Amino acid sequence: MLRLIDRLFEAVDKKGHVCLGLDTAPDYLPESFFKGHSSAGEAIFCFNRRIIEATLDAVAVYKVQIAYYEALGLDGLAAYAKTLAFLRKNGAIVIADVKRGDIAKTAEMYAKAHFSGEFEADFITVNPFMGMDTLSPFYPWLKTGDKGIFSLVATSNPGASDIEGLICKDGASVSEKLGAMIKSEGEAFMGACGYGAVGAVVGCTNKEQTVSIRERMPGVFFLIPGYGAQGGKAEDMKNYFVNGNGGVVNSSRGILLAYKKDERPIPFDEAARGEVLRMRDDIRNAI
Amino acid sequence: MLRLIDRLFEAVDKKGHVCLGLDTAPDYLPESFFKGHSSAGEAIFCFNRRIIEATLDAVAVYKVQIAYYEALGLDGLAAYAKTLAFLRKNGAIVIADVKRGDIAKTAEMYAKAHFSGEFEADFITVNPFMGMDTLSPFYPWLKTGDKGIFSLVATSNPGASDIEGLICKDGASVSEKLGAMIKSEGEAFMGACGYGAVGAVVGCTNKEQTVSIRERMPGVFFLIPGYGAQGGKAEDMKNYFVNGNGGVVNSSRGILLAYKKDERPIPFDEAARGEVLRMRDDIRNAI
Repeated sequence: MLRLIDRLFEAVDKKGHVCLGLDTAPDYLPESFFKGHSSAGEAIFCFNRRIIEATLDAVAVYKVQIAYYEALGLDGLAAYAKTLAFLRKNGAIVIADVKRGDIAKTAEMYAKAHFSGEFEADFITVNPFMGMDTLSPFYPWLKTGDKGIFSLVATSNPGASDIEGLICKDGASVSEKLGAMIKSEGEAFMGACGYGAVGAVVGCTNKEQTVSIRERMPGVFFLIPGYGAQGGKAEDMKNYFVNGNGGVVNSSRGILLAYKKDERPIPFDEAARGEVLRMRDDIRNAI
Repeated sequence: MLRLIDRLFEAVDKKGHVCLGLDTAPDYLPESFFKGHSSAGEAIFCFNRRIIEATLDAVAVYKVQIAYYEALGLDGLAAYAKTLAFLRKNGAIVIADVKRGDIAKTAEMYAKAHFSGEFEADFITVNPFMGMDTLSPFYPWLKTGDKGIFSLVATSNPGASDIEGLICKDGASVSEKLGAMIKSEGEAFMGACGYGAVGAVVGCTNKEQTVSIRERMPGVFFLIPGYGAQGGKAEDMKNYFVNGNGGVVNSSRGILLAYKKDERPIPFDEAARGEVLRMRDDIRNAI
């Protein structure tokens, strides 16, 4: 059987670079949509299911941001679990965007929480602030070939200069040093496609930076947030790709809320599909 | 009404410096304990309740590590919610050890998740890696006087040297730079006790470091992990305190598993109470 990272690589080749972010807030749903659902969580799951069904053939990977579900308590987390199960049942690859980061037995518990049981995902995002020993508890799972992580490395929010942008005494930034560590950590988990199961979250910054980040991290698969609603353009990120692969680009609100931007009264899933196809082609054309 | 940080300061004066970590794994429970409980989560909640009832008068604050509950799925998170509610109903102060860190609307969702609703806690721990804009979405909650955060600043796990220990070109470490930012962020939320609602997680490192960390961060309340099972000693951390206050010291396994170390067959809650009193006095004597 194919390793997870090879499955992701193949999905990008076949379907394009879109990572669809299911950061579904209750106020993203059409007002009429709450009728007939027993709870906010249930309504959100049904919204997600229709978005998924409408986009499965054109989305490389889905990313589910757990914060939106945690905010609704147990009802929200039940919807989170159902969304992940529905995606996996339909053969989709799923990134749980949980950005967990802790050490020792606590990190083992997070690995168990998000790589098995009700909240099982394929990839999870992790926060490496406390050091590489926050990642190692995930490695026994990565060894199976079935699981992977994306570590924060270089984000493009305004506050990224606070820690990630600090310059060390050898002239490298914290992000650059971290990038080298992440590249090295991933070498134990390489797939046939030339990328490993330890990926990196890298923002949509300026072009020069993207060139430098890709050069420093060959063999590291990129999860690139910031397209669309957050202002990132395909042109800005094209240097992250090597022979048209090696990364996926996330859009959440831009897709989920496409129906609100359409002048015609159009079903939300149809509008989402339209935006996915537009985004897929936009990125393919830029690369 | 007293602000939360002033309540915590008062609790330390009155009850001592113990922060009891409810990092309750199923295998911490006495074997017989699962009988009569409908699920692992239910057994864990009942275990926690007895620990809490036996220690309320000698514990300044409880810290609940969500990873242990996430690992059990929805059943575990129901036990997490019940544990938090039971603590707050009994007047205890609660730190949700969630180490969340994200930006913009996602961070707002985490704030909502852990400062209201089923998972409501008093303080939460946060991971500041992506920058100070990961903290600002919590500030509207801090302004009420009822909520607070503890940001990771200087941990003492082996991997802490990877990022936190990097030396910047001005000679300061990443942790030191971060400490200055956290101090500054907290100035908008000061209590009458002289500490603010933005606290710091600082490890049990060597004595020289604790002196330097405290000098750099006056007015910042410290959450100090690592006592007991993780090897930290009261003597090592005494310099974190100013006039006997300004911090709490966490122990989890050392307290929850005290019953396994006792030579007599002793109920787990009685053993936990014994360890809390011993630890409380150990820290008081060292300061």
